[in-house]
Amino acid sequence: MKSYRKELWFHLPQRMGFVNMTAEVEKCLRESGVREGLCLVNAMHITASVFINDDEGGLHQDYARWLEELAPHEPVYSYLHNRTGEDNGDAHLKRQVMGREVVVAVTDGKLDFGPWEQIFYGEFDGRRRKRVLVKIIGE
Amino acid sequence: MKSYRKELWFHLPQRMGFVNMTAEVEKCLRESGVREGLCLVNAMHITASVFINDDEGGLHQDYARWLEELAPHEPVYSYLHNRTGEDNGDAHLKRQVMGREVVVAVTDGKLDFGPWEQIFYGEFDGRRRKRVLVKIIGE
Amino acid sequence: MKSYRKELWFHLPQRMGFVNMTAEVEKCLRESGVREGLCLVNAMHITASVFINDDEGGLHQDYARWLEELAPHEPVYSYLHNRTGEDNGDAHLKRQVMGREVVVAVTDGKLDFGPWEQIFYGEFDGRRRKRVLVKIIGE
Repeated sequence: MKSYRKELWFHLPQRMGFVNMTAEVEKCLRESGVREGLCLVNAMHITASVFINDDEGGLHQDYARWLEELAPHEPVYSYLHNRTGEDNGDAHLKRQVMGREVVVAVTDGKLDFGPWEQIFYGEFDGRRRKRVLVKIIGE
Repeated sequence: MKSYRKELWFHLPQRMGFVNMTAEVEKCLRESGVREGLCLVNAMHITASVFINDDEGGLHQDYARWLEELAPHEPVYSYLHNRTGEDNGDAHLKRQVMGREVVVAVTDGKLDFGPWEQIFYGEFDGRRRKRVLVKIIGE
Repeated sequence: MKSYRKELWFHLPQRMGFVNMTAEVEKCLRESGVREGLCLVNAMHITASVFINDDEGGLHQDYARWLEELAPHEPVYSYLHNRTGEDNGDAHLKRQVMGREVVVAVTDGKLDFGPWEQIFYGEFDGRRRKRVLVKIIGE
């Protein structure tokens, strides 16, 4: 069994945003040499997500507006978590809706995707560097 | 390490619906010959889900009503995504709540489930054929 | 390939609550002897979650309040599922928001975590014993 690990770094200038990271994960897969197996991609931070959906800018704005309705940033005092001195209580909720991780099948050395599947980093408390873990196991 | 891959097809006549696919995944597992490992089941389309919950019709109606409240289909113009000519902006949101994939333990050649766990295909933009990927790795 | 399986039991006295189970999963990992691989941790019951987030009591209260807004327990008759005699329709919805499972990378014999990642059991229909499955595969 082969095993591969890499950390990818992201630094978004705004609080919330989405970044297509598919090409970077594909590069990891090529480096791994794995032909058949599973590829785990997860946020290492708890106010960020990794998810699979469409690379369409309007949709990403829809996500941002919807998540802001489901878990508004303001008023920050409405979150007990923010009594710790943080202002990111909402980000911990948004991340649960969008998810922490994806597991992708590796078949014949490729990410085994449907026609529109793309991997995104979802940031809900940006303006600092954060990491995503790529772990690939297989043969 | 053994590796197995299969695509399952679904075609729901309505926009939203849920289909129990547990027996089909169990058939895949038998075909794979894997006794110990992991079984990934994921929607290959980004307006559909694979999730695990209860095979109870009332609950599925509850899910449908609740998802429609969280991310209503109408008015379609309220989604920027629909400016692309699509009318499925809501389906991309509903799918995030219900999830893209499940990973199930394989133990002694069986899906290692609790008493009520069943695998469902969740459709949020139906009336066309869509695929689910089953990938099993192990020994 | 090594393979390891263990069931962990939880019994929360209240309907909803969150328990940090990271140390128990770490103990499983040590028992498994796996150095490189994947660790699946999933609720075996469909009104409970396993998720990764912050071990901060205020945040957990925020989660509880938010989930109660998204899928209120009362009135119980508002869920068709409760016509079966159950009163846990809301719990099946809350669990979908928080998720069934996490998959964690195993690197050098450790859970490969970011600085604040902790694994939680999320209970939405407590006051009885329930199980979580830990399955580890690798080498």
